[in-house]
Amino acid sequence: MREIGAEELRHIARGAAILGTGGGDPYIGRLVAEQAVLECGPVLVAELREVPDDALVAGIGMIGAPTVMIEKLPAGEEAVTAFLMLQRELGRPITHVLPIEVGGMNSLAPFSVAASLGLPVLDADCMGRAFPMVQMVVCTLDGVLAKPLVVADEKGNAIVVDVSDNHWAERLARSATIRMGCTALLSSFPMSGRQARDITIPGTLTLASRLGRLVEEARRERVEPCQAIASFLGGRVLFAGKVVDVMRARDPRFAKGEARLEGDGTSCLLAFQNEHLVASRDGEIVASVPDLICVLDAEGEPVPAERLRYGQRVTVVGAPCHPRWRTPEGLALVGPSAFGYSHEYVPIGV
Amino acid sequence: MREIGAEELRHIARGAAILGTGGGDPYIGRLVAEQAVLECGPVLVAELREVPDDALVAGIGMIGAPTVMIEKLPAGEEAVTAFLMLQRELGRPITHVLPIEVGGMNSLAPFSVAASLGLPVLDADCMGRAFPMVQMVVCTLDGVLAKPLVVADEKGNAIVVDVSDNHWAERLARSATIRMGCTALLSSFPMSGRQARDITIPGTLTLASRLGRLVEEARRERVEPCQAIASFLGGRVLFAGKVVDVMRARDPRFAKGEARLEGDGTSCLLAFQNEHLVASRDGEIVASVPDLICVLDAEGEPVPAERLRYGQRVTVVGAPCHPRWRTPEGLALVGPSAFGYSHEYVPIGV
Repeated sequence: MREIGAEELRHIARGAAILGTGGGDPYIGRLVAEQAVLECGPVLVAELREVPDDALVAGIGMIGAPTVMIEKLPAGEEAVTAFLMLQRELGRPITHVLPIEVGGMNSLAPFSVAASLGLPVLDADCMGRAFPMVQMVVCTLDGVLAKPLVVADEKGNAIVVDVSDNHWAERLARSATIRMGCTALLSSFPMSGRQARDITIPGTLTLASRLGRLVEEARRERVEPCQAIASFLGGRVLFAGKVVDVMRARDPRFAKGEARLEGDGTSCLLAFQNEHLVASRDGEIVASVPDLICVLDAEGEPVPAERLRYGQRVTVVGAPCHPRWRTPEGLALVGPSAFGYSHEYVPIGV
Repeated sequence: MREIGAEELRHIARGAAILGTGGGDPYIGRLVAEQAVLECGPVLVAELREVPDDALVAGIGMIGAPTVMIEKLPAGEEAVTAFLMLQRELGRPITHVLPIEVGGMNSLAPFSVAASLGLPVLDADCMGRAFPMVQMVVCTLDGVLAKPLVVADEKGNAIVVDVSDNHWAERLARSATIRMGCTALLSSFPMSGRQARDITIPGTLTLASRLGRLVEEARRERVEPCQAIASFLGGRVLFAGKVVDVMRARDPRFAKGEARLEGDGTSCLLAFQNEHLVASRDGEIVASVPDLICVLDAEGEPVPAERLRYGQRVTVVGAPCHPRWRTPEGLALVGPSAFGYSHEYVPIGV
C-alpha cells in the first residue's frame, strides 16, 4: 500500500478525467477529495494483490448528468452516506473502497469516502474508463450484481435498490437520481477481495496518476502534450480544430448532445452521453465506444463534455479500450449497439 | 380479535371500494385476498385497543395508476416481499398488518399478507378513505414517517426509500413505481402499537364490512341502495345520470382525468386522480376533497374511476371525511390546494 496526498490527487484528477473521456469535471472532484484529505489525512491505495480473499470491497461513484453538477455541487457527505448505508445493508464492515469507474469525479469520490472512514482505496476500477450507465461494468460480464445498490443525495435522501439484474438496477437508480435533482452518489457492487482480484481492471488509479503527471512533464519539456497523451495510451490524435457548434439534448438522465468541430478544411462530429461515444470525420466514423475518445485543450487538459462551448480549440485523441470490452459479450454491453448505434465497431490502433 | 373469512372479505371489498371513492378495483383485490385465505386459512382482525403498546405495526398498500392494473395484475407475492423487506430493514418481527388506506384493493392487500404470514390485520387505516399520494396520511400530521418505505414489483424488483420527509418518500416511491410498470406494492409507516392507537383512524375495516353488507340488505329489502349508502355515511346523493364523456390524461403516475355526466337536464363534472377529487353540478362545486365522492351503479356497486365509460348510469354520493382532514393542517395536506385547486373547501353535510 502507498500513501496518496494532495499533489498526487491532482495528477489523478487530470489523468482520470482524460481516461474518463468527457464524463465529469476533474476540478470539482479534486476539490472534494482534497478537502477530505486535508481534514482526515492522506489515503492509502492498495494494489489488488494486497487484498485478502475475504476482504469486503464495495464501489462508489457519481450517477447522473454532469451538466447539472456545474451548478449543483455535491455536498461531500452523500458519498459517505451511500457507502455506510450499503455497509448497513451488507451487515458487516466494508474493508476497501473501489472506484466504480475512472473519471474526473469518479476517481476522486472514493478518496473522499476513504479519507473520512480511514479505509484504503483499491488501485482498480470496473470499466477501465467511464461509461454512463450502471450495468456497463466488467462486473456484469462476470455475474457480479449491483445488489444492493444505494443512491444518496445532498439533501439526506437515500434509496436502496434490491434487484437481481444490473439493467434493472440502472433503471431504478436512474429514476431516483432524476427525482433527487439529476445527480447523486451511488454505492454498490459489493464483492469479496478474491472477486475484486479476478474481475476488476487493475492499476487504473496508477495509470491515471502517471497520465496526469505526464501532461505536466510534457509541458515542462516543451513536448506537444496531446501527442504525448496519445502515445502513452497507444492511440493517436484524430482531429484538431475549433468547436463551431454544440447541440445539447434536454434529457434529465445524462449530458447528451453533439459537438461539431472544424479545422484544416475538415469537420469532426462528436456524439456524447456523459462520455464521448462516437467521433466522425467528414461523415466517416474514426472512433467509437468502447474505445476512448478524449477531448483535450492545447495544454493537454481534459475538456469535460458538459463544458464544451463555441470557439474552444480542442484536440481529439482516440485510444484503445480494455481488451475485455472488445470481446463479443463486452461489445454487446458497451459497444455501439448498446447506445442505439447501428455501425460496426472498428477497433482503434489495430 | 375476530376471524374474517371469505364471505366477510366480499363485504369488505365492496364497502372499502365505496369508501375508496373510485381508487382501485374491488374485484381484483378480493380475488387476491380470497386466494390467500383459501391457501392459508382465515385471518384475525384486531381492534386498536387489543394491540400491545410495544407491538410493531406496519402498513401495506398498492401504489400506482389503477388504470394499469386492469391489464397488469399483481402477482400476489410482491405484497409479502415488500412487507418482509421492511421487516428486515427494521430488524425485528412486525406483529400487526395495517391497511394504509381504505380501498377496493388496499383494504384487501393486507389480508393477503396477513394470511401468508399468520399475522392479524388491524381494524384501522391511515386515511379513513383513499388518497393518491404517500404523504396523504394522518401519520404525516403526527410526524410518523414513511421511513423506511419499500416498493416491490411482480418481477421481484424492490427498493427501500430512506428519507425523513413523507413528501420525498412519495417522490422517490413514485418514480420507482413508474419504472416498475406503473403499479407496485408498498410497505411502510412502521409504528409502535401505542402510536397506532393514538394516530390511525379506528374501525374502518368494520365500517367497510358493514357498508358492504348494507348494500346487499338494501337490495333484498328493496330499498334504494345508493340512498342507503348516503344515509349510512351521513352524506347525500349529489347526482344521478349517465356518463356522456370520459377524458383520461396520459399520466404514468395516476389514473387522472374527468368524467362528464348528464341527467335531469343538468350536468355533473367529476375530476379524478385515482380517487374522485371534485364534483361540480352545472359549473358549481358540490363536493370536494377531502370529503368522499362515491360513484355507484344502480345496484349500489362502486364504480372505480378507471372503469368509468360512456353510457354508464351512475349515482354520485357525497359524504363527510374524517374530522382530522377538516382541520387547517388536514386541509393543507389533502384539501383542494394540495391537488392544485384554488377553490375553498366547503364541508359536505354541515
